[in-house]
Amino acid sequence: MNTHDLIRELREPAATKIVLLVADGLGGLPLEPGGKTELETARTPHLDALVRDGVCGLSLPVLPGITPGSGPGHLGLFGYDPLEYRIGRGILEALGINFPVGPKDVAIRGNFCTLGADGKITDRRAGRPTNEANKAAVAKLRTVKVPGVELFVEPVKEHRFVLVIRGDGLGDAVNDTDPQQVGLEPLPAGAVAPKVVAATPAEPDPGAFRTATAVNEFVKQAREVLRDQGPINGVTLRGFAKYPKIETFRDVYGLKAAAIAVYPMYKGLARLVGMDILDPGSTLQGQVDTLKTVWKDYDFFFLHYKYTDSTGEDGNFPAKVEMTEAFDAVIPQVRALNPDVLIVTGDHSTPSKMRSHSWHPVPTVLAAATCRPDRVAEFGEEACLRGGLGQFEAKHLMLLAMAHAGRLGKYGA
Amino acid sequence: MNTHDLIRELREPAATKIVLLVADGLGGLPLEPGGKTELETARTPHLDALVRDGVCGLSLPVLPGITPGSGPGHLGLFGYDPLEYRIGRGILEALGINFPVGPKDVAIRGNFCTLGADGKITDRRAGRPTNEANKAAVAKLRTVKVPGVELFVEPVKEHRFVLVIRGDGLGDAVNDTDPQQVGLEPLPAGAVAPKVVAATPAEPDPGAFRTATAVNEFVKQAREVLRDQGPINGVTLRGFAKYPKIETFRDVYGLKAAAIAVYPMYKGLARLVGMDILDPGSTLQGQVDTLKTVWKDYDFFFLHYKYTDSTGEDGNFPAKVEMTEAFDAVIPQVRALNPDVLIVTGDHSTPSKMRSHSWHPVPTVLAAATCRPDRVAEFGEEACLRGGLGQFEAKHLMLLAMAHAGRLGKYGA
Repeated sequence: MNTHDLIRELREPAATKIVLLVADGLGGLPLEPGGKTELETARTPHLDALVRDGVCGLSLPVLPGITPGSGPGHLGLFGYDPLEYRIGRGILEALGINFPVGPKDVAIRGNFCTLGADGKITDRRAGRPTNEANKAAVAKLRTVKVPGVELFVEPVKEHRFVLVIRGDGLGDAVNDTDPQQVGLEPLPAGAVAPKVVAATPAEPDPGAFRTATAVNEFVKQAREVLRDQGPINGVTLRGFAKYPKIETFRDVYGLKAAAIAVYPMYKGLARLVGMDILDPGSTLQGQVDTLKTVWKDYDFFFLHYKYTDSTGEDGNFPAKVEMTEAFDAVIPQVRALNPDVLIVTGDHSTPSKMRSHSWHPVPTVLAAATCRPDRVAEFGEEACLRGGLGQFEAKHLMLLAMAHAGRLGKYGA
Repeated sequence: MNTHDLIRELREPAATKIVLLVADGLGGLPLEPGGKTELETARTPHLDALVRDGVCGLSLPVLPGITPGSGPGHLGLFGYDPLEYRIGRGILEALGINFPVGPKDVAIRGNFCTLGADGKITDRRAGRPTNEANKAAVAKLRTVKVPGVELFVEPVKEHRFVLVIRGDGLGDAVNDTDPQQVGLEPLPAGAVAPKVVAATPAEPDPGAFRTATAVNEFVKQAREVLRDQGPINGVTLRGFAKYPKIETFRDVYGLKAAAIAVYPMYKGLARLVGMDILDPGSTLQGQVDTLKTVWKDYDFFFLHYKYTDSTGEDGNFPAKVEMTEAFDAVIPQVRALNPDVLIVTGDHSTPSKMRSHSWHPVPTVLAAATCRPDRVAEFGEEACLRGGLGQFEAKHLMLLAMAHAGRLGKYGA
């Protein structure tokens, strides 16, 4: 049985509040055998206190061994099976800048790049232009016209922009044009077999040919209109994606949900499932202040903290420890609001040692009046192994949140 | 692959015996933070000894966060996916009183109620009539005739009866007529969209209209024939259900199975999967005596103990502790029979603190000669977290039982 149908059948109204704090890339690894992880190294008195009052475990974002991107990592935490719902990068970028993607659109992440006289890429980020230079280049791209489709070009920041192609019967099974290294020419766009979760191999979609043809024309004209923009003289495109059919948080859970995130990607993921996107500024304290301000207005709060991931991606173990401690420091302000259910977890692990996302399960704590004690006294990867939540699939976390919030009735007589 | 097909493929004959002791609602919660659960509080020397000889874990009845009724809770323990097999309340009630439900029948749970002069319910249980008054009222209901269908009315006890409607093309997607509170009139029956295991919304079933029409006529006549029965002057109906297609224990496991239960619901669940229903009287000792008496005649024994659940539902922590100790006291008599596999578990948790079923995983112990030791030395929620069975879905327990009983061969070459 579909879990969302089950939730819709069992859910009950309640005046309870659920807070989901996501410390991006929370899980880690020791640098040396026998050592401690970043989280175990960090001094986290407030998270440890939460653990003593709650129940712990380790979240498997997708499946054992599967390293998720931010999209699948968050969809799982939101209770959407990340193997069922696949969200393209282009859609995430478009949502993150508040572009109203529609059903006839294919959204694409664009990068400005620098091309040499031989047409080969010399800088994949065009020298990381200022946002002003980005906007000027975007203005040039907006002069490009391709017959049969409407084009929208929107700046993101530095070298990044969003391209949206609107037209009838467009498909999104198109290869990235970014060759992912310098010294190569951008690839032509072409239709590829769609990445589907299905046992049968799929045929290339005719709609994808239409998209690829339009995109190749756009890229050709882009080189012409960008010829006076200095190092910004080319584009690469990736993450071709149509808007997925996805049920909202209110549809599934009956929850009025707010997202308190700083970075576009996470705002985009939250908008995808129908959360209201609040503007907390750019600091964690600003996010917590926003949480307090809107406390009365929502049932569910998703707060996203970026820096446990970005420091891990940088391979900076001490910085990840420090960012973890900064995150710990705001926990008392959240607990002072008396949420009925407070969850702290991550969308995946980002061990500094690996300088990347990883598949390792993610430390998780859930605190509520109905928790069964598990004697775990500190928040860390090894301690969570002995926790009452065990190792669980991330997609089941929202079921537990709903249950502990008194929002799920009994299944069957 | 369907697990039942797998079992049929792998199963092997063996002269081994499996005992499944279900202490209903076994799992609990501490009353205070840092306290012990009912099971952890109870003095259970015999269960603790069993744990030292066996392997422990925690059973997830359905999914994390999902609170099961008795039906799904038991189906899971019997190895039937409770999200695949959905058993209506009416069927359980009918099975519990040994009514031979057939394929043309819709079974319904009926309650006698008291209606005021304005037709509104003043007592949902008609003052909890004696069983004699119940039988007298049922005799009156048996005089009701509705064209096109056959009606069967059977007493259960107190205010409860079973109504079975037999006819061609009847559906069971009919709403309850019980409004679940006093001060309201009983609701008319109507066809509703069936609760289906499917992503697409279902249309109301035309067969359900036929059932609803017949039921509304029955209810109308019931008021007339009951007018001299004192406080029993109305009926409410719920749990409309047809007999589900379900494979028997013998079909799936090749086991000759006996159920030793006191309460109708659990007899009904066991009959549903084809177990023989024995009559042990009304005491736990009677149940154990029955087990001894029929020991030679069966391969599998399901013994259901009710009072760990009913005391939990009453919110009576000390009574649940006491009932747990009473259950512990009979364990030596069961072990003396030398079962090849002895399992003690519950169909769900019923924490006294919550006065209801809950979603919390259920302590489980399995003892057999082939158990791998897990160093757990006492039977309790927190201790079971460290057990060798881990946290497992209840529906997999029978696979373990079959394996430890030497009744499952190798899968693949």
